[in-house]
Amino acid sequence: MACARFISLKTSGMVRAFSTLMSPPSKAVFYDNHGPPDTVTKIIELPPVEIKANDVCVKMLASPINPSDINRIEGVYPVRPPLPAVGGYEGVGEVHSVGEAVQGLSPGDLVMASPPSPGAWQTHVVRDKSFWHKFDRRTPVEYAATVTINPLTALRMVEDFVDLKSGDAIVQNGATSMVGQCVIQLAKLRGIHTINIIRDRSGSDEAKEKLTKLGADQVYTESQLNVKNVKSLLDNVPEPALGLNCVGGNAASLVLKFLRQGGTMVTYGGMSKKPITVSTSSFIFKELSLKGFWLQKWISSGNTEASREMVDYLLGLIREGKLKYDIELTPFSEFHAALDKALGKHGSQPKQVIKF
Amino acid sequence: MACARFISLKTSGMVRAFSTLMSPPSKAVFYDNHGPPDTVTKIIELPPVEIKANDVCVKMLASPINPSDINRIEGVYPVRPPLPAVGGYEGVGEVHSVGEAVQGLSPGDLVMASPPSPGAWQTHVVRDKSFWHKFDRRTPVEYAATVTINPLTALRMVEDFVDLKSGDAIVQNGATSMVGQCVIQLAKLRGIHTINIIRDRSGSDEAKEKLTKLGADQVYTESQLNVKNVKSLLDNVPEPALGLNCVGGNAASLVLKFLRQGGTMVTYGGMSKKPITVSTSSFIFKELSLKGFWLQKWISSGNTEASREMVDYLLGLIREGKLKYDIELTPFSEFHAALDKALGKHGSQPKQVIKF
Repeated sequence: MACARFISLKTSGMVRAFSTLMSPPSKAVFYDNHGPPDTVTKIIELPPVEIKANDVCVKMLASPINPSDINRIEGVYPVRPPLPAVGGYEGVGEVHSVGEAVQGLSPGDLVMASPPSPGAWQTHVVRDKSFWHKFDRRTPVEYAATVTINPLTALRMVEDFVDLKSGDAIVQNGATSMVGQCVIQLAKLRGIHTINIIRDRSGSDEAKEKLTKLGADQVYTESQLNVKNVKSLLDNVPEPALGLNCVGGNAASLVLKFLRQGGTMVTYGGMSKKPITVSTSSFIFKELSLKGFWLQKWISSGNTEASREMVDYLLGLIREGKLKYDIELTPFSEFHAALDKALGKHGSQPKQVIKF
Repeated sequence: MACARFISLKTSGMVRAFSTLMSPPSKAVFYDNHGPPDTVTKIIELPPVEIKANDVCVKMLASPINPSDINRIEGVYPVRPPLPAVGGYEGVGEVHSVGEAVQGLSPGDLVMASPPSPGAWQTHVVRDKSFWHKFDRRTPVEYAATVTINPLTALRMVEDFVDLKSGDAIVQNGATSMVGQCVIQLAKLRGIHTINIIRDRSGSDEAKEKLTKLGADQVYTESQLNVKNVKSLLDNVPEPALGLNCVGGNAASLVLKFLRQGGTMVTYGGMSKKPITVSTSSFIFKELSLKGFWLQKWISSGNTEASREMVDYLLGLIREGKLKYDIELTPFSEFHAALDKALGKHGSQPKQVIKF
């Protein structure tokens, strides 16, 4: 195999000569300090690593730049890898070589990192075979590379907090985000209406049109909701029982205003960096519940296998054309251009996915 | 019976002469406009009312002035009786006379309004027999008059939101309130620690001492918690899984700071009239849940019988000396002096209870 190398290693002060299966060197997005991602990251070449008996070496094919990747590099994400680190958290690749004890995975198989874990932004990754989840090769690779975090977050939030039935409704802010787009489509598949809140910005009409095509029942900019009673806008859509918040500040207050008596708002992001403010009567008399969702914690609470089944379900929807979202593929050599887009330097952009 | 009257009524244009059981006239705290309770309320005499076959006429003995009574008169409480109205919401009395079909209740029995309902501040109340809950006459009347709202709220909040075990902890603000005093004692009975937050004010040392005597593990004024990490104060008390908030604003933020990973804060009041502000990361990474509790809604959701059983349990604790709280009895003739105290015109005061 191309990445098997015969080398000599100096171990415990003793020179030993033996044959060891090694990975190719790996080009990686590396950082050894927290700070602005566009300044602290650089592309370096990491030396080959040993492929042990149960390891699988994967040549990475694609990996997205998610907001949480940026927060980890900035150092503001509460759980992050120790420094120095390689960026990225989810991605897919092709099996390059396998350790001698590995069964069920062979060179050429397509696999994804499962659960999502640090170090996806590099050309070659060596991990235990249990870390890799083989997926149907008919799946577009850019979707497989992005399915384990945002679409899965959308699915869990639609399913886990409120027992929604066909005809019920969800209200969400940040509706143009990848999670937002998935929520619209996953809800639609179950006959659940969505009320969608987006930022005021140039291009908001196009954004509304796009979300409507995905199945959104209603789309409002924040300023359109500056009315006395937002519920008067609902028309035939019922008051939503579930609200999803990834923005905070005023956009979270708007979600709360739409919620019906006894409704639940789930916070999964804070793009505005503003806190959530809630009146006392929202809790006592409107009986609202506020919770949070963190996919990483959910998966690590014994749900790795469950998450793989759900990912396969989502990939099935993707192959059937029932779940789609905006993606822009960028070659690894132009990583920093993609990073600038993900950092919002050029306004609203599709999800940036690195192609190795 | 003293309140049986023979009168003639003109009904449906037809003059009929017959005997009807009537209540005595009732002196009542009456208001026909919302506004400041000390200006819009007046004591008037209401005419006798008919005691129908299933009715019970009760001579009221005692009724408290609760914050929600004040808010109903002010018109800021979302659910309130139509105007004109008689104030008050809970209380006890002695059966004065019963309708011909009433069994199980006799003159002289002690009963309480159950569920709590509008119109307790008057000398005589006529309601269907199902409305009255007979209680053990060995109970001090001022406790029976105050048990159905605040102590029951404390009990439900300690029991219903988090599965607490002996050795666990609760953090609460507004700890000197009647609910607060009950939470301390009900928790203590189950081996649950309490961390208590009170306002900065003159007399805070006495308040601390009093709460400690009731069983509080820790008592802090808000300013004492102006430290970097409030959890460093916990010593041997574990991080609390349940927080109770009846204040809002900074006092609610302090409760949130004490809560452990995955903890729940229940809001049941908003004495500061300030909203609750929560960071995004409190929801996502600290996995906090925020909910509300409203006793009236809980009882009306099919829990009238359950609430009576719990009230009996609480009255038992009271008779055994295991549950006590500050009460000041005031004769009905001095209602407006008691109201001024309840309105906070003379600083912090014990719960004001009207004695009829």
